[in-house]
Amino acid sequence: MTSTDADSSSMAALKLTDDQPKAEGAAPSTKPAKKAKEPKDQKAAAKSKADKPPQQAKKKMGEPELIGITVGKNEDLSEWYQQTILKGDLLEFTDVPGCYIYQPGSYRIWEFIQEFFNERIRKMGVKNCYFPLFISEANLQREKDHIEGFAAEVAWVTEGGKTKLEKRLAVRPTSETAMYGFYSKKIRSHRDLPLKLNQWNNVVRWEFKHPMPFIRSREFLWQEGHTAHMTEEEAGIEVRQILDHYASIYEDLLAVPVVKGKKTVNEQFPGAHYTTTVEGYIPAVGRGIQAATSHCLGQHFAKMFDIQVENPNQEVKEGEKREKLYVWQNSWGFTTRSIGIMILIHGDDKGLIIPPRVADIQVAIVPVGVNAKTTDADREKLYDDIKNIAATLEEKRVRVECDFREGYSPGYKFNDWEMKGVPLRIEFGPKDSAKSEITFSRRDQEGKGTMSLSDIGTGIPKLLETIQSDMFKKASDEYAEHRKQITEWKDFVPNLNQKNVVVVPHCATGECEDEIKKDSSGQVEGQEVDARAPSMGAKSLCIPDEQPGEIKEGTHCINPKCERGAKMWVMFGRSY
Amino acid sequence: MTSTDADSSSMAALKLTDDQPKAEGAAPSTKPAKKAKEPKDQKAAAKSKADKPPQQAKKKMGEPELIGITVGKNEDLSEWYQQTILKGDLLEFTDVPGCYIYQPGSYRIWEFIQEFFNERIRKMGVKNCYFPLFISEANLQREKDHIEGFAAEVAWVTEGGKTKLEKRLAVRPTSETAMYGFYSKKIRSHRDLPLKLNQWNNVVRWEFKHPMPFIRSREFLWQEGHTAHMTEEEAGIEVRQILDHYASIYEDLLAVPVVKGKKTVNEQFPGAHYTTTVEGYIPAVGRGIQAATSHCLGQHFAKMFDIQVENPNQEVKEGEKREKLYVWQNSWGFTTRSIGIMILIHGDDKGLIIPPRVADIQVAIVPVGVNAKTTDADREKLYDDIKNIAATLEEKRVRVECDFREGYSPGYKFNDWEMKGVPLRIEFGPKDSAKSEITFSRRDQEGKGTMSLSDIGTGIPKLLETIQSDMFKKASDEYAEHRKQITEWKDFVPNLNQKNVVVVPHCATGECEDEIKKDSSGQVEGQEVDARAPSMGAKSLCIPDEQPGEIKEGTHCINPKCERGAKMWVMFGRSY
Repeated sequence: MTSTDADSSSMAALKLTDDQPKAEGAAPSTKPAKKAKEPKDQKAAAKSKADKPPQQAKKKMGEPELIGITVGKNEDLSEWYQQTILKGDLLEFTDVPGCYIYQPGSYRIWEFIQEFFNERIRKMGVKNCYFPLFISEANLQREKDHIEGFAAEVAWVTEGGKTKLEKRLAVRPTSETAMYGFYSKKIRSHRDLPLKLNQWNNVVRWEFKHPMPFIRSREFLWQEGHTAHMTEEEAGIEVRQILDHYASIYEDLLAVPVVKGKKTVNEQFPGAHYTTTVEGYIPAVGRGIQAATSHCLGQHFAKMFDIQVENPNQEVKEGEKREKLYVWQNSWGFTTRSIGIMILIHGDDKGLIIPPRVADIQVAIVPVGVNAKTTDADREKLYDDIKNIAATLEEKRVRVECDFREGYSPGYKFNDWEMKGVPLRIEFGPKDSAKSEITFSRRDQEGKGTMSLSDIGTGIPKLLETIQSDMFKKASDEYAEHRKQITEWKDFVPNLNQKNVVVVPHCATGECEDEIKKDSSGQVEGQEVDARAPSMGAKSLCIPDEQPGEIKEGTHCINPKCERGAKMWVMFGRSY
Repeated sequence: MTSTDADSSSMAALKLTDDQPKAEGAAPSTKPAKKAKEPKDQKAAAKSKADKPPQQAKKKMGEPELIGITVGKNEDLSEWYQQTILKGDLLEFTDVPGCYIYQPGSYRIWEFIQEFFNERIRKMGVKNCYFPLFISEANLQREKDHIEGFAAEVAWVTEGGKTKLEKRLAVRPTSETAMYGFYSKKIRSHRDLPLKLNQWNNVVRWEFKHPMPFIRSREFLWQEGHTAHMTEEEAGIEVRQILDHYASIYEDLLAVPVVKGKKTVNEQFPGAHYTTTVEGYIPAVGRGIQAATSHCLGQHFAKMFDIQVENPNQEVKEGEKREKLYVWQNSWGFTTRSIGIMILIHGDDKGLIIPPRVADIQVAIVPVGVNAKTTDADREKLYDDIKNIAATLEEKRVRVECDFREGYSPGYKFNDWEMKGVPLRIEFGPKDSAKSEITFSRRDQEGKGTMSLSDIGTGIPKLLETIQSDMFKKASDEYAEHRKQITEWKDFVPNLNQKNVVVVPHCATGECEDEIKKDSSGQVEGQEVDARAPSMGAKSLCIPDEQPGEIKEGTHCINPKCERGAKMWVMFGRSY
């Protein structure tokens, strides 16, 4: 078997879908689903497949074949997603299930996120550092709730070289327990507070749920911030500052709208005092998705790891000892899942659409109107003009690629850049040159426009910003339309089935959430259902910061079986 | 046992030395040496310890105690190194032997290296990406020489959650085998060449040699570049470009001199066609140290992973198939070892000296002349003046820290910043203010200087650059003095014992190198020996690019037992 064979067979074996709720409770297995291509609902798939023939580029003699995305986004999101990320050169599968290759196209987005976030946290006094990949079992188990939350998904190293290790080592699923022994040593006095560290690294969670590239993978990249403070109040302020930065990465960089809020106790981080979150929404399937979380850990870990200082504000007499105070800790993390959310929200039937601010290539310039009759001199002049256009834009810090590839038609190139999601394409040919203008095509809209050559230095950067804000507005409107405020249980499941998330009065207890999850799975008799909507039960996504109104005394919890009375508005939804 | 106890006991258990050649051949064990504090040569240590009392800061009433580095660098390098990195807040030990915490002080240096190198490789068309941490055993074993080189040091994951994995997974020791299946898939035609990818990640080599922070650790951070080219020539050009960048990181950023060259076959990378290297030198012990390597892998991996394209330059008749050409590949890596080399070279008895270009804090400003009689208004004015000085410098992109810590004497602060290696300290008090000047102290030199306040905007950045170049010059002169060109075997071991590396005529065969290694260990009878010089055998460090002269036909190899005749000048030394 050649290596190429091996790769393609492993590819087939790894073709996994994002949407297999029934498998979630299945017995653990390291074998991925062998074949999961069939859409969940054959009828719906057949219908929409008929709507839209596979896209093919117009082929130039002898040029390589470009096969576009062959399935509509609304037809089979899972298949669409897989084709989009593979053909868009963002990701590749490997022979280790749930572990993926981040190609330059996606890794660059991650670098933009790193730059953006680093700048903000440095201003907050956070310092970057690096803690080991391996955590001793003894250390990992020091916080009870925490280890219970992760025990099922820890990957263990048991052999080094040809030797069995005396004590197995955990591959970090997160670094609380790796870091806090150090905090205990480092923090000797209130003068050492606050201690604010962050690291960008890889973590492994050996989940046996079906993996989905970017969204749920066994290894992923993230940053994890860990801070220690004198008071709960100070810790709480930081939790919120970070949540604002997370929202800003999504909204300002990735053009993805999020809802800020707090997790219910049921859904918070193992070992946390409370968890705040930004929650996204995937319109194509009407599912919510946790986008990033910022936790106040309270004093749990401080007690387990003995991180304490003397109370500096206590008045003491000579010889008297000051009381010891445990520090207040936070941890907060933002992962490469964000890239998956961005893809799922913005992409269309042609493939990726990358928001300009995180696009490695913001503008692709394609020469047009060149044919067999074009003289070498004319072609050279055209290419020089294009290089000048690129230089003008690069001076304005626009990231440009001139597509001078030989042997490909402009049509092929257009489709190629569209599939890769480049936000703006410029076409330039002899006709444009004669009119001293460029023709452009926005990736987020149909149609073409023109711009005077003399305007591009200011016009193109402005246009890129317009694309960025239009992309955000479109996604934002869609989220708002599908976030329904309801108060009656009869509207609960029908709304989920209409691919909505719902904001409802709730008692905020875990038992009631579990009950709602159970009662909201499946369909409702008599209701016409969108087959693309998922059918698993809904869980609480967050308690939105922006409560849509007051909850009056005596308001019923949305769950008709619950008699506790509503305490707040809680957002529920089927989710990833 | 409290966590603090646990930490300090693990600290003691982990106290490892850098220099235990005798232990290299010992049976593998995951247990670190329990106690390795005793210097190798008691007499020498006793002598130099008497020369130099432990440094202590002058203590202010009630201020915390600062304990400086208590051993001279030339007295016991191993102990000095450990104290320097711990007290300088660069690194901390963990309860996993050979895995270390990179504190912000060292991680920031790594970030500067990343920025510097990213800028250069982007210009070469290299793109960053990320490949999985885990490599399947089948993949890892595909290149025979390669796996033989790494088999003894691979860490294996065998359990996920509570389940034993069907197939164990290697934690990457390097990513050739993780990446090249992808290359095979990605490279379909000569148009896909060159393919140039790089990743910044963590790798694990579960060595059973004694670990040494930064220098030899079981997990380390690095970048690994992997590229594929049409021709050997093109690959070769890149190998050298990268080597130049590596030399530039050392010389221009870290102020560390290196010798560029090629590895002998004996010392090249497992699976490489040839290996180029930059070699450093640690004056305190007279040992060479491999600083970074850039390999041409030739076509070995291309054959194993089936990475080939059709020959685009071949003239073919219709229906005839073009011949297949295997691509030429390179890989090149630069690691966090560089930080260790930098520390070992520049540090002095007071602790770290960080070159200005990679110092997170370039200038520490310490208020002086404030005492119990100082009025609040005067103190406030002084602090405002200092803030203005800082603002002036920050405008010039100087990284400044104002040390307004309460309860610490200026003496304590001076020692603290010195220990942390901040390259320039500014002192500012009422007397300086009256004279409109600042007092400064360069970390790399004794004594103090003054500068007019009106000059600091240009004077301080210039001074920092002077410090940078003086540090490089000092280290460079020292390396040059200790690189001895010799032609007679009788001078070989004595030179090693005088803490030199030697450049010698050599036959360039592996057997001869092995023989030299065996014959150059230990001491020479009758020679007065520097007890700090290591005593292990010398190995070939590199074939320097700058050959000190022609090797005439008939020149003898330095090894008197060798009859092959010398082919080139080779640099040998005892090394890390």
